Amino acid sequence: MSIRVTVWNEYRHEQTHKAVAALYPQGIHEAIAAGLRASADFNVRTATLDEPEHGLTEAVLSTTDVLIWWGHLAHHEVRDEVVDRVVQRVWQGMGLVVLHSGHFSKPFKRLMGTDCALRWREASDKERVWVVSPGHPIAQGLPDYFEIDQEEMYGEFFSVPQPDELVLISWFTGGEVFRSGCCWQRGLGKVFYFRPGHETYPTYHHPLVQRVIANAVRWAAPTVVGSFTRDVTRPSAPLEPMG
Amino acid sequence: MSIRVTVWNEYRHEQTHKAVAALYPQGIHEAIAAGLRASADFNVRTATLDEPEHGLTEAVLSTTDVLIWWGHLAHHEVRDEVVDRVVQRVWQGMGLVVLHSGHFSKPFKRLMGTDCALRWREASDKERVWVVSPGHPIAQGLPDYFEIDQEEMYGEFFSVPQPDELVLISWFTGGEVFRSGCCWQRGLGKVFYFRPGHETYPTYHHPLVQRVIANAVRWAAPTVVGSFTRDVTRPSAPLEPMG
Amino acid sequence: MSIRVTVWNEYRHEQTHKAVAALYPQGIHEAIAAGLRASADFNVRTATLDEPEHGLTEAVLSTTDVLIWWGHLAHHEVRDEVVDRVVQRVWQGMGLVVLHSGHFSKPFKRLMGTDCALRWREASDKERVWVVSPGHPIAQGLPDYFEIDQEEMYGEFFSVPQPDELVLISWFTGGEVFRSGCCWQRGLGKVFYFRPGHETYPTYHHPLVQRVIANAVRWAAPTVVGSFTRDVTRPSAPLEPMG
Amino acid sequence: MSIRVTVWNEYRHEQTHKAVAALYPQGIHEAIAAGLRASADFNVRTATLDEPEHGLTEAVLSTTDVLIWWGHLAHHEVRDEVVDRVVQRVWQGMGLVVLHSGHFSKPFKRLMGTDCALRWREASDKERVWVVSPGHPIAQGLPDYFEIDQEEMYGEFFSVPQPDELVLISWFTGGEVFRSGCCWQRGLGKVFYFRPGHETYPTYHHPLVQRVIANAVRWAAPTVVGSFTRDVTRPSAPLEPMG
Repeated sequence: MSIRVTVWNEYRHEQTHKAVAALYPQGIHEAIAAGLRASADFNVRTATLDEPEHGLTEAVLSTTDVLIWWGHLAHHEVRDEVVDRVVQRVWQGMGLVVLHSGHFSKPFKRLMGTDCALRWREASDKERVWVVSPGHPIAQGLPDYFEIDQEEMYGEFFSVPQPDELVLISWFTGGEVFRSGCCWQRGLGKVFYFRPGHETYPTYHHPLVQRVIANAVRWAAPTVVGSFTRDVTRPSAPLEPMG
Repeated sequence: MSIRVTVWNEYRHEQTHKAVAALYPQGIHEAIAAGLRASADFNVRTATLDEPEHGLTEAVLSTTDVLIWWGHLAHHEVRDEVVDRVVQRVWQGMGLVVLHSGHFSKPFKRLMGTDCALRWREASDKERVWVVSPGHPIAQGLPDYFEIDQEEMYGEFFSVPQPDELVLISWFTGGEVFRSGCCWQRGLGKVFYFRPGHETYPTYHHPLVQRVIANAVRWAAPTVVGSFTRDVTRPSAPLEPMG
Repeated sequence: MSIRVTVWNEYRHEQTHKAVAALYPQGIHEAIAAGLRASADFNVRTATLDEPEHGLTEAVLSTTDVLIWWGHLAHHEVRDEVVDRVVQRVWQGMGLVVLHSGHFSKPFKRLMGTDCALRWREASDKERVWVVSPGHPIAQGLPDYFEIDQEEMYGEFFSVPQPDELVLISWFTGGEVFRSGCCWQRGLGKVFYFRPGHETYPTYHHPLVQRVIANAVRWAAPTVVGSFTRDVTRPSAPLEPMG
Repeated sequence: MSIRVTVWNEYRHEQTHKAVAALYPQGIHEAIAAGLRASADFNVRTATLDEPEHGLTEAVLSTTDVLIWWGHLAHHEVRDEVVDRVVQRVWQGMGLVVLHSGHFSKPFKRLMGTDCALRWREASDKERVWVVSPGHPIAQGLPDYFEIDQEEMYGEFFSVPQPDELVLISWFTGGEVFRSGCCWQRGLGKVFYFRPGHETYPTYHHPLVQRVIANAVRWAAPTVVGSFTRDVTRPSAPLEPMG
């Protein structure tokens, strides 16, 4: 059964910056979607900020297994009722893969419960991404490390809750390290944060970046929950005689 | 150096229900504060919902090392600017000990990033609290388990993030289990959730409940952070020549 | 591609105790194997203590994706070179599912680094197994809880390292709780401990016990590791010019 | 009450290599001990490989709160009965701080349950140690990062169980990263691994390296356990009537 993926993108840089448009003529979302469409097990669509309800209607979210999120300039324009909808779908089991500057997006900050701040620098850093959990499904098929020739630097301290599982750590030319691939569970849903992807670099065309994203989608896809029937509005009857 | 503790209580049940007032004539906060005042290493004050700014002004919070929180009926009356203030102080290092029905309080839900729902029943359950991490500072001085003769039942699934450390699990006569003592880190601050404490039972007079709370306060007290000087508004200069 | 499972059993009780033989005429290993064979995605064989090399030759282990382990009376008879072989295969990626009294087996103790002791009682306890991580793959298709009418009691403190993920907690009639479904990573391999399965009860015929085991095998199956080529005998050349 | 620390050192390099002897004329153990003796809350002694029972008699271990371990050339010379003694004392609550090449020591490998391998290079790398959990007691008083001008490189993948808490990550000039400060619980005892400390560099004279070790000792000191009275040789009586 295929995994239904929705790739969400702010889609502003690509329409206003020539350099970004040159790298991602159809938008970052279409580059990510193209990477996923190369695998038969994904059913991929996209959504962007300027669509009605940011493209994330109840109908879309209720048929999304995993949502990918890229945002940067316009986090504050994402309407709170859409954020609520995304967060609640995660609690119900939808996977969420947050990319790069999405660390400051409303859904991610809401799910983390922290400010998600970090150290940063736009420069000509090389990034080397090391695998620190080689048996993890998200590291499947990766070498010991891979390199991204040019990227924005993100450095520690990254103020998120300690990840349930830490899969990747980045090294930067300028002297910093960063927890680059982090897993958390929130309610029934899984959340993965993946660091790379500044809009002025061709990062989402990198085959190993694409592989991490594909692995993360498979990992984050919801499991079939049994009879999870809790009703918090009514008390629960005792299962045993109470002495 | 003593730990500065502020015990916050909604303080409504005690003023409207005779049975609760009989158990806690000065309020739940004063019962908890009295338990802590028995130790020389705490400097304890209290704050309640109906005080100006709920008693949690900038001045109070900036001189609080650990905040204890009890709320139930009036979570929605806690003003969002006070919630923001509490959450930001936790990120800066203040400890937070959330008790019982505080699982649905605004600060706790904000820090967890989940809905914090659970199964429950008001009945005559006996609760037996088992230690599952006997080397943890919060278990210091506890026996293998302790009993609370009558308590409200809280049962799984408790929809919080998997705790960084799980210290206590409760058994209930009626057939349920519950992760009763849970630790998380959020930013520089530590959060502990402790289950017992329904207002119609004398739980906060129980010496081992008082011990858990005192241990939790010591555990959650902030460490002295060094030169944590990150400024997210400005880029970080490279530490190394960038090839 | 099917998952290659080897079910290992001490296979002594079944040959010496009539009551056990009546419940498991072909041995506990065949009951577990039968449960797995009902699913098309498993390729199942068995191995037992009294076979040459306990049935766990290099040839068998090198073609095993997930090993299931049941032992009780004769942990000390398992030869250390076979234990070494099992442990090293786990480090290389083989999954290991340890059942019930296997908590005291040599491979499990070696992988945990603790004494794996626990509280216990052979009596007529009812066990109720609660799901505390309903989104976890091992909980797939389970109800909120399930019951085993009669089981041996295992209680806390269970002296294992805090699990990476805690999936199940058991409640017992006699008043105890136990972390019944625990996940750990060791090297490239995944380890799952599942509590139920005393030899004098028909536990392994219980459909939900079978489901947990099947889910655990799928979860523990190795991922395809990329170019994990570390050689600890030789130094690693610098990747960057060293200033 | 002071914390009783025993600093254990193999003490071979210092007696056979002039360069090492010049850096550590009294041995690495005395350099570490001197750093700790600067604080009033430690009661410090030392022990070395060539003493009878490696200096780790029952009498010494039973009066040790935290054991520090440095070894390299002669891991195989440490006798198994002493290793058993150390491991059992950790299970009973003694803290253990393992330094640098101690990653391959027998007690550490036994407590981890993995092979503890890693990537390495003896060269002129600079190491920069980043704090990734600034609220953790072991990070107390540290800056955002600190530098060690010359060190041996240790790189990922470090095959240990995912740490319960990750406090430090190192960056190396040559292009690698390493999880440099890792916490685990084993039984009632706490274990901390701290990476720096190659014998040919003056690392243990570095004030911030000394600070991390002192912080780790305070963190690993045992808590006062209550009535932890489990007896695994006898069954546990039911606490409740069993229906």
